[in-house]
Amino acid sequence: MEAKLTLVGAGPGDGELITLKGIRALEKADVVLYDELACHELLDFAPAHSMKIYVGKKVGEPSFSQEEINGLIVRLARKKGHVVRLKGGDPFVFGRGHEEMQYARDCGVTVEVVPGVSSCISVPASMEIPVTRRGVSESFWVITGTTRDGSLSDDMQLAVQSKATVVVLMGLGKLEEICALYKRFGRGHLPMAVIQNGTRPDEKSVIGQVWEMPQLVREQNIGTPAIMIMGEVVALHPSYALEYLHSNGLAC
Amino acid sequence: MEAKLTLVGAGPGDGELITLKGIRALEKADVVLYDELACHELLDFAPAHSMKIYVGKKVGEPSFSQEEINGLIVRLARKKGHVVRLKGGDPFVFGRGHEEMQYARDCGVTVEVVPGVSSCISVPASMEIPVTRRGVSESFWVITGTTRDGSLSDDMQLAVQSKATVVVLMGLGKLEEICALYKRFGRGHLPMAVIQNGTRPDEKSVIGQVWEMPQLVREQNIGTPAIMIMGEVVALHPSYALEYLHSNGLAC
Repeated sequence: MEAKLTLVGAGPGDGELITLKGIRALEKADVVLYDELACHELLDFAPAHSMKIYVGKKVGEPSFSQEEINGLIVRLARKKGHVVRLKGGDPFVFGRGHEEMQYARDCGVTVEVVPGVSSCISVPASMEIPVTRRGVSESFWVITGTTRDGSLSDDMQLAVQSKATVVVLMGLGKLEEICALYKRFGRGHLPMAVIQNGTRPDEKSVIGQVWEMPQLVREQNIGTPAIMIMGEVVALHPSYALEYLHSNGLAC
Repeated sequence: MEAKLTLVGAGPGDGELITLKGIRALEKADVVLYDELACHELLDFAPAHSMKIYVGKKVGEPSFSQEEINGLIVRLARKKGHVVRLKGGDPFVFGRGHEEMQYARDCGVTVEVVPGVSSCISVPASMEIPVTRRGVSESFWVITGTTRDGSLSDDMQLAVQSKATVVVLMGLGKLEEICALYKRFGRGHLPMAVIQNGTRPDEKSVIGQVWEMPQLVREQNIGTPAIMIMGEVVALHPSYALEYLHSNGLAC
């Protein structure tokens, strides 16, 4: 029996946004380790006899540490065979997937990576906001809001000065700080959207400009998991102009 | 009959990296418009009676202009029903997918977008290079090498000064210029990889440092389509140290 780990990107939430390759890995799983970002119906692709273990980290609930997950992967691969680690979005975008891969390989486990649809692109796309658009944005910059030491990433300082579309994942707790930074650089009127549960049936979003976003997010009760996107591409959203007029009491 | 367009991301090349949602759209296609980046086996998901039209733009071959593709989508949707526009990678990452969507909608065609696995993340991942890694890179910046006026994107100037992992798509023609820019900012020793045909059976790649990359790419005959990735994450590749020693004649 070969001890094997397949890291699979589960996509952004919509269960149909997993890849064919991801499904085929699940069909051959002896164990599935999954987190709360993955759509639970995806587990039905795994054989009935396979072990399915939730290792997600949810605020206020007991959870496995990264070290425990690493250890679990290796022990289960040795004992059961093929472990599929199902991770929300893409396994290499802020998912610590590479750490899990490296640890398993160092322990002699065979490793494969199946990329997924990352929420950084697909969640704006679900609102028909493209991260790039000819003549509007030639690049996009994806930044985590949650750094190791809890501070705002240094990259944000440069990002607010760039012409890139900026996408922040796991950054809702830093919303006020990020918006203040844009305002400091004279960019408070940049179009911005915040999207909770993107691509899922319970998707919620708010569209407006940077200066008003902390208030809009509070008023409309947007919570985690959420992503934010700042850039002129947001103004391509059909309701952008209208929402802007409404939020400023200018609509008739 | 409803005139409908579904924009589907075909993924980076590996035919199994299309999503389940993309397959289901293809299964209901009356017409498929595809380009040369999509894996041709994907067309087998479409019904046998459906029209399959190649609209890709290949250097040296006749091709449809963007305006012609837009017009084709609308005419075929009205005449045949469901048009699936199969685009390499993700339809909203430098794919002009948003323009096609907008044009079709303005003409009264119903539009849906099915995100795909973007090559900007999955091609480095296929080499086991993560675009982010805790403690190494907190962000990644994806830039097109091919701007409307043919010049290097202004965003590159800022990107070379940032700590972000930088991924350049469609930029092989600008390789010398990009590497020179890094050197000008004292970053010639940054780890870098160039990958041609990523995730396909004929994948070719070269790993090293920025300063030596133009020469390595020439020597190893790396051609288009290629993506380049610059950043400390590239040094996580198992062969990085070794290749570096080899390319400098230091290996024993």
